[in-house]
Amino acid sequence: MASDARTAASSAIVRDMDDTVDDGGSAPGEEEDLDALPATEGEVDPGEPVPPQLPDLQIPEPGRTLSAVTVRVGPDADFVDILVRLRDAGADVVSVNSFPATRGEADVDRVLDVEFRDLDGESAADAVRRAPGVVVAEPRATLGQIFGKRVIIIGGGAQVAQVSLGAVSESDRHNLRGERISVDTIALVGERNIANTVRAVADLPRAHILVLAGSIMGGDITAAVREIQAAGIPVISLNMVGSVVDVADLVVSDPVQAGTMAVMAIADTARFSLERARGRRF
Amino acid sequence: MASDARTAASSAIVRDMDDTVDDGGSAPGEEEDLDALPATEGEVDPGEPVPPQLPDLQIPEPGRTLSAVTVRVGPDADFVDILVRLRDAGADVVSVNSFPATRGEADVDRVLDVEFRDLDGESAADAVRRAPGVVVAEPRATLGQIFGKRVIIIGGGAQVAQVSLGAVSESDRHNLRGERISVDTIALVGERNIANTVRAVADLPRAHILVLAGSIMGGDITAAVREIQAAGIPVISLNMVGSVVDVADLVVSDPVQAGTMAVMAIADTARFSLERARGRRF
Repeated sequence: MASDARTAASSAIVRDMDDTVDDGGSAPGEEEDLDALPATEGEVDPGEPVPPQLPDLQIPEPGRTLSAVTVRVGPDADFVDILVRLRDAGADVVSVNSFPATRGEADVDRVLDVEFRDLDGESAADAVRRAPGVVVAEPRATLGQIFGKRVIIIGGGAQVAQVSLGAVSESDRHNLRGERISVDTIALVGERNIANTVRAVADLPRAHILVLAGSIMGGDITAAVREIQAAGIPVISLNMVGSVVDVADLVVSDPVQAGTMAVMAIADTARFSLERARGRRF
Repeated sequence: MASDARTAASSAIVRDMDDTVDDGGSAPGEEEDLDALPATEGEVDPGEPVPPQLPDLQIPEPGRTLSAVTVRVGPDADFVDILVRLRDAGADVVSVNSFPATRGEADVDRVLDVEFRDLDGESAADAVRRAPGVVVAEPRATLGQIFGKRVIIIGGGAQVAQVSLGAVSESDRHNLRGERISVDTIALVGERNIANTVRAVADLPRAHILVLAGSIMGGDITAAVREIQAAGIPVISLNMVGSVVDVADLVVSDPVQAGTMAVMAIADTARFSLERARGRRF
């Protein structure tokens, strides 16, 4: 068993080195997992990886069309009319973002980015191209296709930076194998600020896991952690003072390892399961 | 003049230390800038800080209402009907995000987060509460109010992590003084991947500056850099092989300093101006 594992790991390493010279185009799920925790008795069952826990309309899934259109409009355009046309063409709209026009084009004062499922980008652009006020409509990739799932890190600057270092380095390895995982952070101070920000992670598109990186967190932050766990977002905490460690899904002392484990927990190309490690301290 | 500056800096340091024990609630713009580059002849004019270059509908601005509502809906809800009701109540919708319901509430299958200007959250919640299929409608803070402007870092894992370290540490200092700046990263490989991702930064809500962290970038990446600069997003590049350094707004050899400068360039509480440093190499 141990020697099997070693053989598998060594052939996977060879494949991994190959990956670094290509374009990162290999399909996720093809490689052996290099990133699982060393198995302890009873912790790792043989068999299939645990499927991801959090459904997300903005992350690509096999067999489902996910696409986007950028619409550059003038003052005559009707935001709602454009969405009605997309819906009538069959689109299930999952996000809309509005930007002021900044490229200096004549007749364009606003840019609408619309992401949707069940319709391809070309058909969507055709559907809105003749709407009043539309100057340009063109398909583009969705933010989920480009930036993928997000690891969110919140806390004090020094510790957020170290967790980020671990998470960025680990995400690099998974992105080389065809995934898209991004690592997003905010450095904050104060119970109220941090609690409000933890709650807002539930509203953040494509946020799949949260790491709390600080030295003392409790009170309303602990209440906020329970709320976002109830919404399906797991929480890893550094080992610290305060009650947050009592409710976190995982407590990790080393910030670099905390960031690494956060990425492994949401990667399709890793076999690390928070479910199986839940409540442990590392 | 020099002694005036020293006196101002020392009183600002005292205030800065006070900030670390309060809630970060002091208003931006109150303090003297501690973060400007040392002035060189002709580089820094005395006078007002340069106003931010990039208009952004999703970032709070003085004198303009920015608010959000979370609407938890069942299968009978009509996405477009909800937006029409908000618009009729006076809202200028700037973003919509749709999530699958994950809290197990009866009758709720989807959550819509809508952000808008020119209407307060309570009035918006009242406007949609009686729409068909709406189970709960409640006001909440916008993502711009919580996560603020975003520094985006793209490149190779090792270097992205170091730029992130500088940017997170510097953003911590500005967030302590009442700003909200977050630092978001993705580690990627390959000209095509990176060029597509650079282009997508223009579509990323609240992205205000991009740092390219790698060792060789050129070709289509350089073309993509020109495109997002044309959209108003400045680009800082590490000093590296390839043509990206010829078009970047600023080239910085030390990744920690590159991250620091990126935050200073978009902070309201710093007096660093990319405009005045443009084209220089550090």
